[in-house]
Amino acid sequence: MTVYEVIDAKKRKDELTEAQLRFFVRAVADGSASDAQIAAFCMAVLLNGMTEEECFVLTDAMAASGERPARPPVTGVIADKHSTGGVSDSTTLVLVPVLCSLGIKCAKYSGRGLGHTGGTLDKLESFKGFRVGLTAEEFAAQIGRVGGAVAGQTEHTVPADKRMYAVRDVTATVDSIPLIASSVMSKKLASFADVILLDVKYGDGAFLRTAEEAVTLARLMVRIGARAGRKVSAAVTNMDAPLGDAVGCNAEVREAIAVLGGKKNALAELSLYLAGKLAEQALSLPEAEARARVAEAVASGAALNKLAEIVAAQGGDARAVYDPSLLPLAPEKTVVCAEGTGVLRIAARKLGEACLLLGGGRQHAEDGVDHTVGILLRKRAGERVREGEPVAEVYRRGAAEEALARVRAAFSYPKDYAPPALVYDYIRED
Amino acid sequence: MTVYEVIDAKKRKDELTEAQLRFFVRAVADGSASDAQIAAFCMAVLLNGMTEEECFVLTDAMAASGERPARPPVTGVIADKHSTGGVSDSTTLVLVPVLCSLGIKCAKYSGRGLGHTGGTLDKLESFKGFRVGLTAEEFAAQIGRVGGAVAGQTEHTVPADKRMYAVRDVTATVDSIPLIASSVMSKKLASFADVILLDVKYGDGAFLRTAEEAVTLARLMVRIGARAGRKVSAAVTNMDAPLGDAVGCNAEVREAIAVLGGKKNALAELSLYLAGKLAEQALSLPEAEARARVAEAVASGAALNKLAEIVAAQGGDARAVYDPSLLPLAPEKTVVCAEGTGVLRIAARKLGEACLLLGGGRQHAEDGVDHTVGILLRKRAGERVREGEPVAEVYRRGAAEEALARVRAAFSYPKDYAPPALVYDYIRED
Repeated sequence: MTVYEVIDAKKRKDELTEAQLRFFVRAVADGSASDAQIAAFCMAVLLNGMTEEECFVLTDAMAASGERPARPPVTGVIADKHSTGGVSDSTTLVLVPVLCSLGIKCAKYSGRGLGHTGGTLDKLESFKGFRVGLTAEEFAAQIGRVGGAVAGQTEHTVPADKRMYAVRDVTATVDSIPLIASSVMSKKLASFADVILLDVKYGDGAFLRTAEEAVTLARLMVRIGARAGRKVSAAVTNMDAPLGDAVGCNAEVREAIAVLGGKKNALAELSLYLAGKLAEQALSLPEAEARARVAEAVASGAALNKLAEIVAAQGGDARAVYDPSLLPLAPEKTVVCAEGTGVLRIAARKLGEACLLLGGGRQHAEDGVDHTVGILLRKRAGERVREGEPVAEVYRRGAAEEALARVRAAFSYPKDYAPPALVYDYIRED
Repeated sequence: MTVYEVIDAKKRKDELTEAQLRFFVRAVADGSASDAQIAAFCMAVLLNGMTEEECFVLTDAMAASGERPARPPVTGVIADKHSTGGVSDSTTLVLVPVLCSLGIKCAKYSGRGLGHTGGTLDKLESFKGFRVGLTAEEFAAQIGRVGGAVAGQTEHTVPADKRMYAVRDVTATVDSIPLIASSVMSKKLASFADVILLDVKYGDGAFLRTAEEAVTLARLMVRIGARAGRKVSAAVTNMDAPLGDAVGCNAEVREAIAVLGGKKNALAELSLYLAGKLAEQALSLPEAEARARVAEAVASGAALNKLAEIVAAQGGDARAVYDPSLLPLAPEKTVVCAEGTGVLRIAARKLGEACLLLGGGRQHAEDGVDHTVGILLRKRAGERVREGEPVAEVYRRGAAEEALARVRAAFSYPKDYAPPALVYDYIRED
């Protein structure tokens, strides 16, 4: 068998055999497949598709391509959550402390921001000293000690995905349902979480544009998880407007802290909804009871304290949890005012791009991030605004003309507009 | 504009603009597009296709990607011929001397063998000392002096095609009609030939399997040529069985010399047919008159002498033209006998693969070639044979078990079988 033959078969719309898929993934992981061959394979998959069986085998082979950390010796189930990526999406910073404060172990692997989307690891580094690069042993030990940890997967975990993703990123082959599903789920299956909740986003600020695509991806990932013996469920959620009222690392961390302090907005609504769904599964509780416990974790301040505990455990300055001045915003500020009268509509992607242009995001995986720049919304999507009213504040360094233009372009003022419901669907294998 | 955007547009089945195609080809030539991006582009073109307009622009941009040698200062038209590749296809070695002996200038750019197909440059190197690597100046000067030259295009000609072909070769993206057309025609348009005849082969031993695909490719290439202001025509010819009775460099050169000496077989028929078509166009003669002159060039010995002249001009040992012992065959010989009784059917591809296994071909572009190994057919496709009758001789070094098995597998003995007509179609813009 050769890599060429596997590409050729997918090109001809053959269903790939288990042997072919495992051979290909081994060749990706051991370097015998070239980047060009990986690119041709990914484009053939993107255009010709994959059966569910192929996708399951691909995912399983990728998950097995690297080190699989040992499950820490804790009682009860271990939970994980994954978002397909959006703008102003700090649900992890809310959800993990909430669950941990309820006694649910959280083994949360997170990623960096890329393009217009933010990344949890970047945001956590807003806490001075925070270590996102835990070893497998440190990660497991912290789950035992504190109840949860949030870190990046090591470079030895799922090396096949690492190579494939790097190639897909430059070859316009990211937006393939089977490739997204196998990339996400291979990392989840390589981990030891028992209960996994996927937040599959669609809309302007997400990688998938339509709810239908998101449902397809969510169903596929839930089935892949079930076949691998994990309890996987998925919420399909809207990402037309930014989820929270802040974009940028420090600004988003401040907002997550505010939500843990009781602030209400879409970020709070979604974070607590997702936490409730996981609590329901992890603790085998009725839905209402799970939601009540989640609300209580916030109201009591237990979740906020748990965030400080996790930050401290990973070497971060936990004082910032109680003192937002330790999460400074960039010194120069521009207030952006409404250029029309109507119902505010916000294009999340443009705001994410503006943050990238401000220096707060990554164009390339190796870029650095300015944690202080960002955007605070003063009006939310769906609110009525009048021309000249302030709608946002931009925190910048230097002129940032292009970024400001992008912020302005993110807002429109139609006569009528109702933002879509936050949660479109919830999918779970029965 | 970015390479990513061009790939993305082709992936979405957009028709690429002239600006996008020229940008992409420049990025291929100057190295700013990665191999992975070239592979993704080629797979997207293979699966989503290209319009004729896109293909013309791609070809033109590729032709312009490198040095374009100056037309030598000769009177009359300059001819070129190109075969899409087959087994036992030595038409160039017959056709060029025939045309040159009729006073038609031939600027013949040729290639190396690859996979199961042979290459003219390898065969010419059967003449000791033959230089296939002429500079543009040497090439032009020889056309003026001798009337013709056969050489490889330099690495500075069509660098975009060189990179794209190397990527396509390992990513299963060779068999795309627009990519084949642009690869072939970019090299022809980068040259200065006025009259170009394409031999587009189909069948078991060709890259294209069906006559319909070959006609599609031939029509496309003829139209690309016409749009670029060249007189391009195409013969669509069958390559189910090997064209001649010999496979392997020295064996094929011997056979071409024999054809120039009057031997009749399918190789002779096709070579002289193609020479006649080119003579018709180059000399503006009626078809019958052109064919008669071609026949006379062989009968008079003028063409054979011209071959010797060309070989000598390029530094080769021209004595071999008159003394086949200077083109030795490998010392060990196995006679392969019919394993059935019936009409002989020969699968050209398997014979080409057998020659490759004997060491007479190239698995990779950088491999060396053993000129002495090869296969001589003692029976032709369509002849009745009886079990046990010798059908071929294999000239080898060492045991070569796998090669011998492949030779045997190339023969079958159906009750009824009539080889397809040699020339399926002839296409020319009017």
